[in-house]
Amino acid sequence: MQFIKQYIEDNKQRLLDELFELLRFPSVSADPKYAPDVLKTADYVAGKLTEAGADNVEVCKTAGYPIVYGEKIIDPSKPTVLVYGHYDVQPPDPLELWKTPPFEPTVRDGKIYARGACDDKGQFYMHVKAFELMMQTDILPCNIKFMIEGEEEVGSANLATFVKENKERLKADVILISDTSMISMEHPSLETGLRGLSYLEVEVTGPNRDLHSGVYGGAVANPATILAKMIASLHDENNHITIPGFYDDVVELTQAEKDALNSAPYDETQYKQDLDIAELWGEKGYSTFERTGTRPTLEVNGIWGGYIGEGAKTVLPSKANAKISMRLVPNQTSEEITKLFTDHFLKIAPASVKVKVTPHHGGEPAVTPTDSVAYRAAQKAIAEAFGKDPIPTRGGGSIPIVALFEAELGLKTVLMGFGLDSDALHSPNEKYDIFNYYKGIETIPLFHKYFAELSK
Amino acid sequence: MQFIKQYIEDNKQRLLDELFELLRFPSVSADPKYAPDVLKTADYVAGKLTEAGADNVEVCKTAGYPIVYGEKIIDPSKPTVLVYGHYDVQPPDPLELWKTPPFEPTVRDGKIYARGACDDKGQFYMHVKAFELMMQTDILPCNIKFMIEGEEEVGSANLATFVKENKERLKADVILISDTSMISMEHPSLETGLRGLSYLEVEVTGPNRDLHSGVYGGAVANPATILAKMIASLHDENNHITIPGFYDDVVELTQAEKDALNSAPYDETQYKQDLDIAELWGEKGYSTFERTGTRPTLEVNGIWGGYIGEGAKTVLPSKANAKISMRLVPNQTSEEITKLFTDHFLKIAPASVKVKVTPHHGGEPAVTPTDSVAYRAAQKAIAEAFGKDPIPTRGGGSIPIVALFEAELGLKTVLMGFGLDSDALHSPNEKYDIFNYYKGIETIPLFHKYFAELSK
Repeated sequence: MQFIKQYIEDNKQRLLDELFELLRFPSVSADPKYAPDVLKTADYVAGKLTEAGADNVEVCKTAGYPIVYGEKIIDPSKPTVLVYGHYDVQPPDPLELWKTPPFEPTVRDGKIYARGACDDKGQFYMHVKAFELMMQTDILPCNIKFMIEGEEEVGSANLATFVKENKERLKADVILISDTSMISMEHPSLETGLRGLSYLEVEVTGPNRDLHSGVYGGAVANPATILAKMIASLHDENNHITIPGFYDDVVELTQAEKDALNSAPYDETQYKQDLDIAELWGEKGYSTFERTGTRPTLEVNGIWGGYIGEGAKTVLPSKANAKISMRLVPNQTSEEITKLFTDHFLKIAPASVKVKVTPHHGGEPAVTPTDSVAYRAAQKAIAEAFGKDPIPTRGGGSIPIVALFEAELGLKTVLMGFGLDSDALHSPNEKYDIFNYYKGIETIPLFHKYFAELSK
Repeated sequence: MQFIKQYIEDNKQRLLDELFELLRFPSVSADPKYAPDVLKTADYVAGKLTEAGADNVEVCKTAGYPIVYGEKIIDPSKPTVLVYGHYDVQPPDPLELWKTPPFEPTVRDGKIYARGACDDKGQFYMHVKAFELMMQTDILPCNIKFMIEGEEEVGSANLATFVKENKERLKADVILISDTSMISMEHPSLETGLRGLSYLEVEVTGPNRDLHSGVYGGAVANPATILAKMIASLHDENNHITIPGFYDDVVELTQAEKDALNSAPYDETQYKQDLDIAELWGEKGYSTFERTGTRPTLEVNGIWGGYIGEGAKTVLPSKANAKISMRLVPNQTSEEITKLFTDHFLKIAPASVKVKVTPHHGGEPAVTPTDSVAYRAAQKAIAEAFGKDPIPTRGGGSIPIVALFEAELGLKTVLMGFGLDSDALHSPNEKYDIFNYYKGIETIPLFHKYFAELSK
């Protein structure tokens, strides 16, 4: 392992510079005006895979943004690790809240500030550099395949097709993904579960046009008020979701599992201070970790209606809209929950308005068994790189394709991420610690080593 | 009266053309980018007053947009009518819903479509043309003064100062305003009351930054959800406002007043069809006219928070905002209601969020006594021009300066408007019927005639 650290030390500036170059591409998949940039990013990634020593590198066309593929087959009888990542990023807005421009990576206090620094460029690029390291030091123990897509932030709409049409090419023994976080560098951890996702847009329409609130106010239902009432009704006084049937398929943790989960360090004062809030909020009867990792939730991601510009306008709006998403846990399914929400939301709408519900992309929850070869390989790799065993955690976020991989390729996924909760994913001033970047490059070759050993 | 109609007929194209020219100025007071246009509009109005025969025409500077003044004193011993109007208009957005551009007046089916066509340019300009008519036909029976301001749509912030500093110049016997509507041209009516206004912006802040809804969803209060719950709580199941003390000063109508109010023609099916709604909504126990004219109400004029752009973004927003206004009736006061709302809204905020309440401009409710000389003059004028007595109505909208005029100038206001509820004030495709425009020009000289006669 010393030579691994040495390689990183000898190449540390270049390892950073290449990542910065990658971060400069504004590969925002959600907004069509960035399309040329997204495509250029794919080419850059392909080039870097080739430079690192990959064969059969291809920028694979899809109906949307391309998927970058590359591989190194050293011996068909060896296990194969399939690395998944994504080169697209979240939209950067609101721009005015960034201290430095989102696509001009800037280092402050040992952290790289840029959109995508952690989610997911900093994280997947560690695997490209770890691959280069293993090739350069001639220690590659497993076959390795890369599948880096460009539409994760908008639902990976074309990934399923690609996976189904490339089952041979993608044959492997495990999928390795770095797109999650650890508790801290002092308390390394491994994600053992991800929540699923159901995402919908709702539109409440009252009158067929904006009205003068003096002329009509009091006689006509205001869609903003009605939407507020409908949203308000979705959580009861215990912050329990009121959609009928919502919790039917939820698997409760055993007491032992809860104890393990809650054994992770947790400083509630620090948690609240970091967010500058006086009080937490959540489902009665559950701890913070249980609430974010093991319980399904419902959030309003966006809400708008009426006049929202400068100054005052006394309008009774025609419409009010919201984007609402739910995080799911086993054994809820995205399709069932989307249906339950839609039916319920349409049902609670009063007759004085019309309601439309439009589902967006969804994703299934997933749990990785801790007794698998893949999990144990990751556990050993982290124990060696960090000097202590990783704590098993349950992640709040969703990576919907994990269930897709299991269904289509029959493969379990190991979620070995090196991010931190403070990385501000999806927010302004997203960052990734330089320490974590190098630590990941150091740990990944150890995963490959132990996966090969434990697979024998 | 025949010569009045003849004058209008002889000049009808020019009367329209001048109004169109006035409508072409995008005099949007709420948005600073239109400032040059607002100022040009003031100059245009001053020019037209001069052409019509006014003396001492002045574009009077204020701390904001100017107030246009003009007068014709024929005999100091005669009564003086002070005409108020406003040359500024509401913002035109949402632009994409206009069939023809908001500042390019277009005629369809005998209606002039433009922002400000009814509110207030079409209406106040009738007075300028009626003045011209009375001058040209040598029938001006009263002294006349004009006070046309440029900030009504943003709260007339500088009008009070102007009125206080010009009490001598503004001395009069009645204030005449056309900025309201009639039931219809078949059922002419006269506004006998206006609701007041209290307007506030509220901001709910949860975490100090937008969060990833997977990482934090379930553990942290979502300001959009909290705002929805707070707004939802403001009306009970009878759509009665729940703010403590809100209704304390409300004067209920007598049964006779209610009967008079409800005697106006009302076709509920047509009302609903016009708005394309299946059901009305309002305070239990009150008719539509009572709800919009005699009861205080609360509306959400705008609401926003989180990600509201294209596509999906799984953010737990840092903030959610709303613009909320209340319409008031006698004897509620804007200052008291603003305070009650603010205190209540801050009180119901849970500890997991911070709430800020910012009041905007307000205005007092007002009622005009139907036995006054001024009201009877308007009644007779309408009876003669329309062939039937006007029905007394209570208006839902607010013209806050009416209370200001009473307090500072000791004057009652006659609200003799010629608009229609279908004029889509504050909405896209605002319009003013050409018939109503000419009818107003015909009726106004009759008001002056009867006001002079009844004042003897």
